Amino acid sequence: MTLNDRAARRVEALLSRAEERRVRVIEVPGGGRVVDCGVEAAGGLLAGLDLARICMADLAEIALVPGIVGDRSSPVVQVATDHPVSSCLASQYAGWQLARGDFFAMGSGPMRAAWGGEAVFDAIGCREEAGAVVGVLEGRAIPTPEVMALVAESCRVTPTAVTLLIAPTASLAGGVQVVARSVETGLHKLHELGFDLSRIVSAFGTAPLPPVAGDDLAAIGRTNDAILYGGRVVFDVTGDDDSLLEIGPKVPSSSSRDHGEPFAAVFSRYNHDFYAVDPHLFSPAEVVFRNLQTGRCFAFGRVEPEVLARSFGTEAG
Amino acid sequence: MTLNDRAARRVEALLSRAEERRVRVIEVPGGGRVVDCGVEAAGGLLAGLDLARICMADLAEIALVPGIVGDRSSPVVQVATDHPVSSCLASQYAGWQLARGDFFAMGSGPMRAAWGGEAVFDAIGCREEAGAVVGVLEGRAIPTPEVMALVAESCRVTPTAVTLLIAPTASLAGGVQVVARSVETGLHKLHELGFDLSRIVSAFGTAPLPPVAGDDLAAIGRTNDAILYGGRVVFDVTGDDDSLLEIGPKVPSSSSRDHGEPFAAVFSRYNHDFYAVDPHLFSPAEVVFRNLQTGRCFAFGRVEPEVLARSFGTEAG
Amino acid sequence: MTLNDRAARRVEALLSRAEERRVRVIEVPGGGRVVDCGVEAAGGLLAGLDLARICMADLAEIALVPGIVGDRSSPVVQVATDHPVSSCLASQYAGWQLARGDFFAMGSGPMRAAWGGEAVFDAIGCREEAGAVVGVLEGRAIPTPEVMALVAESCRVTPTAVTLLIAPTASLAGGVQVVARSVETGLHKLHELGFDLSRIVSAFGTAPLPPVAGDDLAAIGRTNDAILYGGRVVFDVTGDDDSLLEIGPKVPSSSSRDHGEPFAAVFSRYNHDFYAVDPHLFSPAEVVFRNLQTGRCFAFGRVEPEVLARSFGTEAG
Repeated sequence: MTLNDRAARRVEALLSRAEERRVRVIEVPGGGRVVDCGVEAAGGLLAGLDLARICMADLAEIALVPGIVGDRSSPVVQVATDHPVSSCLASQYAGWQLARGDFFAMGSGPMRAAWGGEAVFDAIGCREEAGAVVGVLEGRAIPTPEVMALVAESCRVTPTAVTLLIAPTASLAGGVQVVARSVETGLHKLHELGFDLSRIVSAFGTAPLPPVAGDDLAAIGRTNDAILYGGRVVFDVTGDDDSLLEIGPKVPSSSSRDHGEPFAAVFSRYNHDFYAVDPHLFSPAEVVFRNLQTGRCFAFGRVEPEVLARSFGTEAG
Repeated sequence: MTLNDRAARRVEALLSRAEERRVRVIEVPGGGRVVDCGVEAAGGLLAGLDLARICMADLAEIALVPGIVGDRSSPVVQVATDHPVSSCLASQYAGWQLARGDFFAMGSGPMRAAWGGEAVFDAIGCREEAGAVVGVLEGRAIPTPEVMALVAESCRVTPTAVTLLIAPTASLAGGVQVVARSVETGLHKLHELGFDLSRIVSAFGTAPLPPVAGDDLAAIGRTNDAILYGGRVVFDVTGDDDSLLEIGPKVPSSSSRDHGEPFAAVFSRYNHDFYAVDPHLFSPAEVVFRNLQTGRCFAFGRVEPEVLARSFGTEAG
Repeated sequence: MTLNDRAARRVEALLSRAEERRVRVIEVPGGGRVVDCGVEAAGGLLAGLDLARICMADLAEIALVPGIVGDRSSPVVQVATDHPVSSCLASQYAGWQLARGDFFAMGSGPMRAAWGGEAVFDAIGCREEAGAVVGVLEGRAIPTPEVMALVAESCRVTPTAVTLLIAPTASLAGGVQVVARSVETGLHKLHELGFDLSRIVSAFGTAPLPPVAGDDLAAIGRTNDAILYGGRVVFDVTGDDDSLLEIGPKVPSSSSRDHGEPFAAVFSRYNHDFYAVDPHLFSPAEVVFRNLQTGRCFAFGRVEPEVLARSFGTEAG
C-alpha cells in the first residue's frame, strides 16, 4: 500500500463523517477536491487529529492527552510511529512550495512522495507511483484549478485524482496538525545535520496544543513555541553511541542562537523573513535517543515552561 | 443522523459485547429494554466509557488517562468534543425528571432531545424526531413499564423503541459516566449565567475517577468533588474578550459560597436538599477560555488537590 | 468466545497489517506458525501494543501515554481491564515452561488456558477447549517443530492450529508487552499471598517503557524495574477492609527484602538465579485497593523515581 493509498483511506473515513468533523468538500472546477478543515468550515480538535493522521499517511498513532502549561490545563498532542522516516519526511514535512499565479502554500502529506521532486527523497527513497494523491496545506487560500493542475501534473495523475486538505494555522484543526509535528521536526533537524536516517527505528513525541491565536502570524508563533519550548521526542535508534553524543547537542532547539524567546519575537526581529531565522531553531525542546543496540540513552535539551507559558499567554482571570 | 440514532448505534456496539462489558439487557414487560450497567450486572470501567459515549450521543472522544490524586495513582476521565452544546446540553445533562408512581430518576442522554420539554431546548434548539430513543439513568431502580411508557409517550415513539441504560452512582460504570461530565458541568453553568452558548466551539475536559463509594450518597459526594475540585475544562470560544473576563470568575466552582469542603459535607449541612445547595457550586474547578477570534486565553478557578484527596479518602496502608 | 478465540481475532488483525507493524510470519515445518515481532523482524511500539493485547486475550484496553522518568520524557504503558483474573492470570502470566530439546521459554497468552496444566487454574478456573491456540514468548529462539507439537498436544489441537508470537526482552515490542504487565504482576502477587482473586473486579495500571537494553539480561533488569519501581496499579475489589489492610503491606515490591536497587544488581548478586531472588519482589511499586463495597481506599508502596532513573540510565548529553 502506498503512502497516498493509506492517506486516501483515511480521507474517506474523515469524509464519511464530514458533518460530525465539521469539514466541507469543495469540488474544484477542472477536477480534484479540497477538504476545508478550518477556512470557512469550523473544523475542530478531531478534524485536526484526522488531518494529522492523513498528513503522516496513517503511519502513526496520534491522540490528545492531558497536560499542563503555566499551571493550567492544556491538551497535548501525542504521536507514536514505527515508520518515522516515511511518515514524517516522505509525507508530513512541509517541503513542497506550491506556487502558481498568486497562490502560494507549503505542501505536506504523501503527495510529496508521488512528486518526489525534493532533494530529501534522494536520501530517504520513498518515491512512489500513486493512482490518487493526497496533500495537506497550512493556509486560508483555497487552491485554484491551476494549483490542482500543478499537483496533478507533478504527481503524474489527473486533477480528479487530487485531494488537498487545508486548515489555517490559526484554527483548531490547523493547530492540532502543526503541533503533531514534534517527531517530524526532530527528524528533519537530524536530516539537516547529516544524520543517517536509516538508524531511526521508532519515535514517540508530545507537544502542547496552544490556544488558537488571533491571526495566522501569531498562530505561527505559538505553534512553533509548542514544539521549540514544549516538544519532547524520544527516538529509538541503532548504531554507535559516539555519533549520538556528537550530534545530540546540536539537535534540540536550544542549540540555536535564536533560542530563548517566543518565536513571534524572533520572527519579528528578522522582519518576518523565515529564511533569516536560524534554521537550527526548528526542533523540539527535548530530544532523547535510546540506542536499541547498546542500550544507552542520551537526552539533550530541556523544555522551557516559562517561555511556553509566555507564548500561550494564559491570563489569570 | 439524529442524536438518538448516534447513541443507538453505540448501544448496539455495547450490546454486541455485553458479556465482555458485563452489562445485561432487561426486556421490560410492555415493551422497551433496560441495559443494566451496574445494578445487578457488574459493569466496569469500559462499560462506563461506553455509557458516557452513549450519554453524549457519541459526539465526544472519551478515554481513561493516568493521573495523581493525593500523591497516588488514579485514573482520569478525559473528554474532547467539537459538539459541546449538542453532546452536553441536548444529551448528557441530567435534566429530565422521570417520575411515575414510586419511580424517580433524573434522565440524561439524547431522549431528552426527542422529548424537548426542558426550557434549555428553547435556547439551544436541537429538538429532534427520533424513530427510537436512548436515555441514561443514574440510579438503582430498574424502570417500570409505566416509566417506559412515559418516556415513549413524551418522545412520540412506542415503548418498544425505548432503551434506557442505568448504573448507580456507587458503581464503576456509574462513576465513569458521571465524571465524564467535566465539560457538561461547565457548559451548564455558562448557560445558567446567560452566556451565549453558540460561542462555544469545542471543549476538552478532565476529571479524576474517584473510588466507588460505599453507598450512593457518599458516591454523589465523591463524583461531585471529582468535578468541583478536580475538574479542568478548556473551552474554545468565539466573540469578545470583555464578556469572558466578566463572566469568567463566576464560572468555576470557586465562585460559589459553598466551595471549599467536600460535597458530602456541604450536602449534609443542607440536610441533603439539593435545591438548598448553591447552584453555582456545580462547575469544574478550573475553566480556561481560549478565544479563537482574539487569541487571548483566560483561566479561572483552581484545582484543589487537598480537598480532592480528602474526599477520595485514600489511606496510606 | 474463548480466550484463545479472542486472541486469534487480534492476531488476524495484526497480520492484516504485518508490514505496517513490521512483524513476520514463519510457517513452521510440521504445522503451526510463529509471528516474529522482534527477533529478525523489526517490530515496534505498535507491534508491542498488539502483542500485549493478544497476551491479555484482548480483554484490556492498552495504550501508550506520556510520562516522565528522571526528568525526561518516557512513554508509559497503560492497561485497563474489567477481566483482571482471566486476562492476566489465565492468559498473560508467563507460567508455562516450554522445554523441548534445547528449546526453553516461558509461555504466556491464552494457550495456557487451553493446556490448563498450571496449578493456578485450580484456583481461578478458566480452563477451556479451543479450536486454535495462541501463545506469546519472550525470547529469541524461534520455536521448533517439536515445540509446536508440544503446545499442540498439550492443548489438544493439531500443530496447524498453533500460533506463537515472539519478541525478545531487548526489543521494542518485547519491552512494551512486558511492561504491560503492571496489573498482572500485582495480581499474581496477590494470588501467591493467598488472596481470594474473585474479589478483584477491575484494574488500572501504568508502568514506564524503559529504553531497550543492549542485551536481554540487561533488558530483564530494566523491564522489571519499570514494574518494581515505576509500576502503579489500582484494584477495584469487593469484600472486607481488614483483609486488605492485612495483606496490603505485603503486596508492593517494597515488601521484599530485595527491594531497593535496580533488578540487574539484585539478579547479579544471586548469580542470575531467578529462583534465588525473593519472589515477593515481583510486584508493582504502588498498589491501591479501592473497596467497591465499603468505599474505603488503601494505598501501599511507593514509586521510586531515583532507582528507576538509575535503571533506565538516561545520560544528560
